[in-house]
Amino acid sequence: MSAEILDGKAIAAEWRQTLAADVALLQRDHQLTPGLGVVLVGDNPASRSYVTAKEKACAELGMYSREETLPATAGLDEILSVVDAMNRDPRIHGILVQLPLPDSSMEQVILEAIMPEKDVDGFHPVNVGRMMLGLPAFLPCTPHGILHMLKRSGVKTAGAHAVIVGRSNIVGRPLANLLSMKSALGNATVTLCHTGTTDVGTFTRQADLVIAAAGRPGTITADMIRDGAVVIDVGTNRIADPSRKSGFRLVGDVDFDAVREKASKITPVPGGVGPMTITMLLYNTLLSARRHHGLGDPVFRS
Amino acid sequence: MSAEILDGKAIAAEWRQTLAADVALLQRDHQLTPGLGVVLVGDNPASRSYVTAKEKACAELGMYSREETLPATAGLDEILSVVDAMNRDPRIHGILVQLPLPDSSMEQVILEAIMPEKDVDGFHPVNVGRMMLGLPAFLPCTPHGILHMLKRSGVKTAGAHAVIVGRSNIVGRPLANLLSMKSALGNATVTLCHTGTTDVGTFTRQADLVIAAAGRPGTITADMIRDGAVVIDVGTNRIADPSRKSGFRLVGDVDFDAVREKASKITPVPGGVGPMTITMLLYNTLLSARRHHGLGDPVFRS
Repeated sequence: MSAEILDGKAIAAEWRQTLAADVALLQRDHQLTPGLGVVLVGDNPASRSYVTAKEKACAELGMYSREETLPATAGLDEILSVVDAMNRDPRIHGILVQLPLPDSSMEQVILEAIMPEKDVDGFHPVNVGRMMLGLPAFLPCTPHGILHMLKRSGVKTAGAHAVIVGRSNIVGRPLANLLSMKSALGNATVTLCHTGTTDVGTFTRQADLVIAAAGRPGTITADMIRDGAVVIDVGTNRIADPSRKSGFRLVGDVDFDAVREKASKITPVPGGVGPMTITMLLYNTLLSARRHHGLGDPVFRS
Repeated sequence: MSAEILDGKAIAAEWRQTLAADVALLQRDHQLTPGLGVVLVGDNPASRSYVTAKEKACAELGMYSREETLPATAGLDEILSVVDAMNRDPRIHGILVQLPLPDSSMEQVILEAIMPEKDVDGFHPVNVGRMMLGLPAFLPCTPHGILHMLKRSGVKTAGAHAVIVGRSNIVGRPLANLLSMKSALGNATVTLCHTGTTDVGTFTRQADLVIAAAGRPGTITADMIRDGAVVIDVGTNRIADPSRKSGFRLVGDVDFDAVREKASKITPVPGGVGPMTITMLLYNTLLSARRHHGLGDPVFRS
């Protein structure tokens, strides 16, 4: 039996329609346009293409965005002054510093300079801590997008055994916290595997739900999955492909062709988790604009 | 085979000797006495006895402590003004508000009013977030104490499968994060079980290390443990015992007598995790005093 393909693009498009409707109402009733500020340092082509996709998505929803591009040689003070101006700009409700920075040692200082109320990536320690404590916070976009994708696809997380492979601060670790939380989108028993795990397959073979977030192609093979499991692939790995104009193609962490014959549902790469991530960024920016103006959270928040 | 009893009292006493030596040096070389401020609201007898134990431990180490006791009827502003005075007091390096408060709805606001630099319980969202991101932070005392107890007892966490039962913000959840982290005290594969878990025994029976932090006697029975597992009991449950002068005795979450026949190592209640918790509070207070005065972290930090 071949697995149902979870179409992230379609689910994201549905969400974005609802978001666009809310943006239109905000403009009509409150003369308020949610705005996203984007900071890009250097000319990494992958970063450039992510930033462009985010700005395009903003525009499609009727949201405002502003990009500030700095040379790869920009110093810490220069980047901080751009962030600070966005912190003070009332048209900007969400600030995104595209990672990685050319000098990665600057990243933490810069992420902590974004005011938590505009931290729509959910990377600031205050938001991370509030998320972990189950308090209102901007949730990190990829984990949050996965939770909504599962819900929309009819995957029950409550009582399920979820095995996450990869312990990054951006995906694996926050997802482990959110999935294990007593909430409508969580309440799963969660096992977090990583490079220190002796035999990942022992754990994934027991899982109702496997989330691959290791950043390495071939991390999850068919023998590691039990029949009927749900498989979410967060990997976005560029591998060389001379047959493409770009010279590369994207593959996930999962051996898609083989695993889809055993799984009950599976996300493709591209077109799976990726579109959900951008959608949650837009959602957080809308949320920030609403909160900033004392309006309630969007009603479609599940 | 009967398990080795992990003597938390003895391990804690050893740590406290080292802490006391560092406190003495700080006084001699820097005229600095680490100080703990304790806020107690109401007259809950368990809270009273915890607070007394902490103050006594401070005194034994040569540290300063100050207690502010407020009536159970104290309002939010009253409590906040006590916390604020301690925030500004240079003799106070760590602030502890004893939980639960008579009005638990006040707890979050009050915990967030403690400045993160004096939050020696590690409950402030900034410290929680920094911990989760692997950044320097005050680590919550019970999880941190367990990690050191394991290390001191020769239990290898790296590559082990740890199953935690209980997802509280104070023990289960931070412990899951710390144990799964790539660090000398972590690097375990971690499964977090809770009240939403379908069959806790399925998971604990596979574990090299079981940590019971559910707050319910009898949570872990002998059939849930595999031969040779290490069992840490965080439970501190008061059950009625007319034969005692106090009218109660403390029991853990683990069926101690039966489980000790299968486990390789086990902590008792009392005298297991409890003494380590207070020790880590003293450690954090010393750390805070040192940092506040621009001194490095104590060298014995492992």
